[in-house]
Amino acid sequence: MEFHFLGTGAGVPAKKRNVSALALRFLEQKRGVWLFDCGEATQHQFLHSALSIPAISTIFISHLHGDHVYGLPGLLSSRSFQGGKTPLTLYGPKGIKAYIEHSLAATNTALKYPFTIVELAGSCQFEHEDCAITVFSLQHPVQSFGFRIEEQAKPGKLDVEALKEKGVSPGPLYAAIKKGEHVQLENGEWLDGSLYVEEPIKGRTVVICGDTAPVEEVSVQAKEADVLVHEATFASDHQAHAGDFGHSTIQDVAKLATSAHVKHLVLTHISSRYAQNETFYLHEAKTAFPSVIVAEDMLVLNLSKKGELTTHD
Amino acid sequence: MEFHFLGTGAGVPAKKRNVSALALRFLEQKRGVWLFDCGEATQHQFLHSALSIPAISTIFISHLHGDHVYGLPGLLSSRSFQGGKTPLTLYGPKGIKAYIEHSLAATNTALKYPFTIVELAGSCQFEHEDCAITVFSLQHPVQSFGFRIEEQAKPGKLDVEALKEKGVSPGPLYAAIKKGEHVQLENGEWLDGSLYVEEPIKGRTVVICGDTAPVEEVSVQAKEADVLVHEATFASDHQAHAGDFGHSTIQDVAKLATSAHVKHLVLTHISSRYAQNETFYLHEAKTAFPSVIVAEDMLVLNLSKKGELTTHD
Ligand SMILES: [Zn+2]
Ligand SMILES: [Zn+2]
Repeated sequence: MEFHFLGTGAGVPAKKRNVSALALRFLEQKRGVWLFDCGEATQHQFLHSALSIPAISTIFISHLHGDHVYGLPGLLSSRSFQGGKTPLTLYGPKGIKAYIEHSLAATNTALKYPFTIVELAGSCQFEHEDCAITVFSLQHPVQSFGFRIEEQAKPGKLDVEALKEKGVSPGPLYAAIKKGEHVQLENGEWLDGSLYVEEPIKGRTVVICGDTAPVEEVSVQAKEADVLVHEATFASDHQAHAGDFGHSTIQDVAKLATSAHVKHLVLTHISSRYAQNETFYLHEAKTAFPSVIVAEDMLVLNLSKKGELTTHD
Repeated sequence: MEFHFLGTGAGVPAKKRNVSALALRFLEQKRGVWLFDCGEATQHQFLHSALSIPAISTIFISHLHGDHVYGLPGLLSSRSFQGGKTPLTLYGPKGIKAYIEHSLAATNTALKYPFTIVELAGSCQFEHEDCAITVFSLQHPVQSFGFRIEEQAKPGKLDVEALKEKGVSPGPLYAAIKKGEHVQLENGEWLDGSLYVEEPIKGRTVVICGDTAPVEEVSVQAKEADVLVHEATFASDHQAHAGDFGHSTIQDVAKLATSAHVKHLVLTHISSRYAQNETFYLHEAKTAFPSVIVAEDMLVLNLSKKGELTTHD
């Protein structure tokens, strides 16, 4: 699973950090590219990445601020123009449907692919492309969401050698044994399937949050998560300021990540006031949490099936 | 007067040509920056130019296609964020007001400067910042406009030496003489002011067109213009294709410019299909019209008061 950080700045575009967008690419192929937020010029960032816009299957919008949605009408149009034909589903807060429909209608734009907009009224859970999605509420001047994505666990491997010794060869019984059921062998003997299957392989859990002041719910949702992506608009030099505007500081996020025993923390949505002083911000981040990464535009991270997070070359 | 070509591509952003935007900067200071069309990421192009977004006083939108307007909500918001306080006026086709107001309302965006949207129902004329503006209709699948901008002529210089010989020194009479009036001198003698003023200094005329198939009206409006900026989405290898989609070829535009005796022609809105073959396009342009420039992103042209067009370093 690759994380492509396409926009890691706050509020307005700056030379080195564009407004918010993060793409998840699942290397397992059965899922499309998932896009989280779509600030203006997100489609331009795609031009400089290894990703293709028609490959996007799903868009999650955390909240309806311009720096998170103004790239949507253009990206949706270009997906059509570039030959995208597969269905696209967009999840976002109430109001997103009217915003998109009005923008497309005003510009006489007809999309040439099936497009579904799902408005999320509040916290909820659903299955999407073999993942369990939990949407939870954050704290911001407008409704803002976090998304917990949990891959399904995969059944453990069969102990084929031990089964052979018992005289059970590959065949119809294997499926039942894999489920851990009790099965009757040809000789009449009963066999406890669960003794011949390894532990199920845990799916990965990733939590991606929109703009927010620090909220306890994040540490609940991100419990033992492999990766937590959270905004840290400010460092501790703007502690009071952050709260006033519904944003978080590095320290706020580090506390939540620590109490959640998160494996890897990625900070994003970074104020342009640190552009001249990135080392100050980086130093504070590194001392606040052991396994932390400060995102930058076009950074690609790879999360292996075993939960190792590495920087893509 | 400087022309800043911020986006010179057609339809969708490409690596080397962004979608449409052209800024006019008047070095005379009394006018603000005028922006013609505002495709997505126009505000990003400003970051790489010598222009500032708060300096924009006027926006002209040629037509409501996404590649000409999707940058508006973000640019308007950023103008506020960057401290813009002076009034901004936007002229555009019917429907632009609802589009902008809905985009700003959906994202809870309040602008902190006086903002006026003027919807243009069709061809019309008005005065704006000491220029005469003529809006005229083009031919495109949606209503599309061209804009003729004509600076007011300035009164000619006084022949101070000749007046001194007549015994008239600088003073209240000068203003009347400058207007070419008949004035009575202290000695009772009458003096024909018009004989002591040089010819008025002609203002510059610039014509900027939106997307269009070739229309005769352009050569009427651009008669003797100093600069005509016109789309030439295609070269002659796509002559039929151009007409089908309401666009023009280099040859179409050269014909109009020739019959209008335009002094300088600038081609823009160039299809990305020529990205791999710019020399083909350039060669055709150079042979089609004597004083032609093929625009590229971030090109700056300077039009002197005397009508000389030069490339800015
Ligand atoms: Zn934001
Ligand atoms: Zn266009």
